[in-house]
Amino acid sequence: MALENPVFEDLMKGFDSRLTHSGIDGERVARRLYELSHIGYTQIGGVKRPGFSDEEKMAKSLVKKWMFEAGLDVMEDGAGNIRGRLAGKDSKARAVASGSHVDSVPNGGNFDGPLGVLSALEIVEAWKTLNYIPEVPYEVIVFSDEEGSRFNSGLSGSRAMIGAIEDEEIAGMRDYNGDSLEQVLAHYGSSIQQFKEAKRDIGELELFVEVHIEQGKKLEKADQPVGIVSGIAGPAWLEVEFTGEAGHAGNTPMIGRRDPLVAAAEFIQRIPEFPGAISESAVATVGKLEVLPNGINVIPEKVVLHADIRDIYEETRDALLKRIIEEAESIAKSRNIHLTIKQNTKIKPVPIEQELQAQLADSLRKFGIEPTYIPSGAGHDAMM
Amino acid sequence: MALENPVFEDLMKGFDSRLTHSGIDGERVARRLYELSHIGYTQIGGVKRPGFSDEEKMAKSLVKKWMFEAGLDVMEDGAGNIRGRLAGKDSKARAVASGSHVDSVPNGGNFDGPLGVLSALEIVEAWKTLNYIPEVPYEVIVFSDEEGSRFNSGLSGSRAMIGAIEDEEIAGMRDYNGDSLEQVLAHYGSSIQQFKEAKRDIGELELFVEVHIEQGKKLEKADQPVGIVSGIAGPAWLEVEFTGEAGHAGNTPMIGRRDPLVAAAEFIQRIPEFPGAISESAVATVGKLEVLPNGINVIPEKVVLHADIRDIYEETRDALLKRIIEEAESIAKSRNIHLTIKQNTKIKPVPIEQELQAQLADSLRKFGIEPTYIPSGAGHDAMM
Repeated sequence: MALENPVFEDLMKGFDSRLTHSGIDGERVARRLYELSHIGYTQIGGVKRPGFSDEEKMAKSLVKKWMFEAGLDVMEDGAGNIRGRLAGKDSKARAVASGSHVDSVPNGGNFDGPLGVLSALEIVEAWKTLNYIPEVPYEVIVFSDEEGSRFNSGLSGSRAMIGAIEDEEIAGMRDYNGDSLEQVLAHYGSSIQQFKEAKRDIGELELFVEVHIEQGKKLEKADQPVGIVSGIAGPAWLEVEFTGEAGHAGNTPMIGRRDPLVAAAEFIQRIPEFPGAISESAVATVGKLEVLPNGINVIPEKVVLHADIRDIYEETRDALLKRIIEEAESIAKSRNIHLTIKQNTKIKPVPIEQELQAQLADSLRKFGIEPTYIPSGAGHDAMM
Repeated sequence: MALENPVFEDLMKGFDSRLTHSGIDGERVARRLYELSHIGYTQIGGVKRPGFSDEEKMAKSLVKKWMFEAGLDVMEDGAGNIRGRLAGKDSKARAVASGSHVDSVPNGGNFDGPLGVLSALEIVEAWKTLNYIPEVPYEVIVFSDEEGSRFNSGLSGSRAMIGAIEDEEIAGMRDYNGDSLEQVLAHYGSSIQQFKEAKRDIGELELFVEVHIEQGKKLEKADQPVGIVSGIAGPAWLEVEFTGEAGHAGNTPMIGRRDPLVAAAEFIQRIPEFPGAISESAVATVGKLEVLPNGINVIPEKVVLHADIRDIYEETRDALLKRIIEEAESIAKSRNIHLTIKQNTKIKPVPIEQELQAQLADSLRKFGIEPTYIPSGAGHDAMM
């Protein structure tokens, strides 16, 4: 395969060969990341593999090929999730599973998803090299459509697997072309019925582990190769609408104005004070805001903004949510501005078991790495 | 003409017949406003007569017809400005002029422009009824393209008349269809050459008076039929760009964020404090704001906002401008945010001569109206 993009060379630049040990082959992982990076490759250096697209399907096919070659039993469910299973000494025991996804956002990076899939697969490669047979069954899973760039709601494969997509949501799903989930699945080679049958008994699994590239900068700044996730934050999304009174910017005296943008500004400016007062890992962000009518010489009539509020603990996340709503109410009242708040999304945070964190910490110390704990601010298949 | 819209009935509802006196006929003015309101009438009850459009031209033709009937010498210049001139006893004296425009913003009101034109014309009608010949020449003027909805820059006719449009601006003008001023004028029946020749010696005029509907609410709230403009505010427009560091809303800790929307919010919230501290008539507004990339779960990278800063006195307007720029600089510095400020528009405020204000006040008192003084926050042809 011609070197059409620099992923492989970049990965192998300064590669620490000590990472190749006990059957784990860092160069193989890099080469596979590189091969996947060609599927949906964009000219500006990223990848575009929307969920249920031909590109996602091609990427899954390549992983399936590697799974077969590694000796796994490969199956695919009606939601497009791929499972490669290795028998354990105790075939009736609950399995340990690991994996991630291979779809991407438009012009996404090469590691979000594929790293988790290939790391999970590399465990199997290592055991094969060492002729090791695990105590319990082991599964490598590739989930479908994690990013949500297709239907504006992600985690489709992992949610289907635990039966967490209601019929009502399924009926309402429309992709970026306006196609229904039914149409998208038909093109993919599945159906709504098969999609629902993807639900499995979660009790079959003892544990799920997902390796993921860092999306913040904590590890990068500390120059640490790896960290331990302390919990996965659950986002709560608020749509906040401030409505005041429009007017001509020149002809409306300052006194008596009911400017919704000034109210929104007070709100946005206050928000950063709250998370730290409630929890060390909590965050709150206003990333999206629209002004209406948005004219240079017009006092706005309405401002619609979206707040993203997260923590890895549900209790503190909800306390922060409450504090932020109260602040909006108080500002709107004092400025005589009409306020509407909608809660569109509210996902439960997932704490990571202390025992598992401790096991991971022990493993890191064996390699001379002092464990760094980081909250996962973004949601991932592992949440489900 | 069928009653297709309610302007006339609305105007005559509760009409005070004492306003019809000395040859001034309130009902005629109402009827003419009504007739003009049909040209470019929109189904939602306003008018759409962009500058240099067929609709503006039709409205001018109707006014020209009335000018001829009133006995005025009518001429049209290369910028499409219409002048109806009445000889005075002293034909060599500097003329008194009055008028406004007949173009409108999309779905504009029926009085912004036409009221000033028809009031100016009604003076001539009154004099005709009274067989009165003025001491000095009198001109009724209809200026072209005042609103700026065609080229995003207004006062085209009045600026052309005083020669205040530079060749560079003319060359760069593109309308909402992407057409150049040259193309628009060709369609209208003029040319760039003739447009430039619209410049006249401003010394030919002694005085210009423009009657305009109130665009604020001061007179409306005080239930006053008329007010005296103390000055015309000159807008200064700032384009303020705050650039920070984008990041994932979930994965970026609160500490160390460089969120340009929080900086912009602090700026917007502070602005209303400044005008009142500098001048009673000063105003400052942020009406337009864009967030980039504007994603719910993305800390913004950039916020571009537009501030409109006005006062009727240049000194206080510029002091306010300076204060606002300093505030932006101080906020950007303290938040480690990159700041760029562009000054796109800076129009000199026009104070109204004290003597003229006193004369207008005397006139009002004769009709038992206690004068109310109001700043004109918006710009008008009279500024030029």
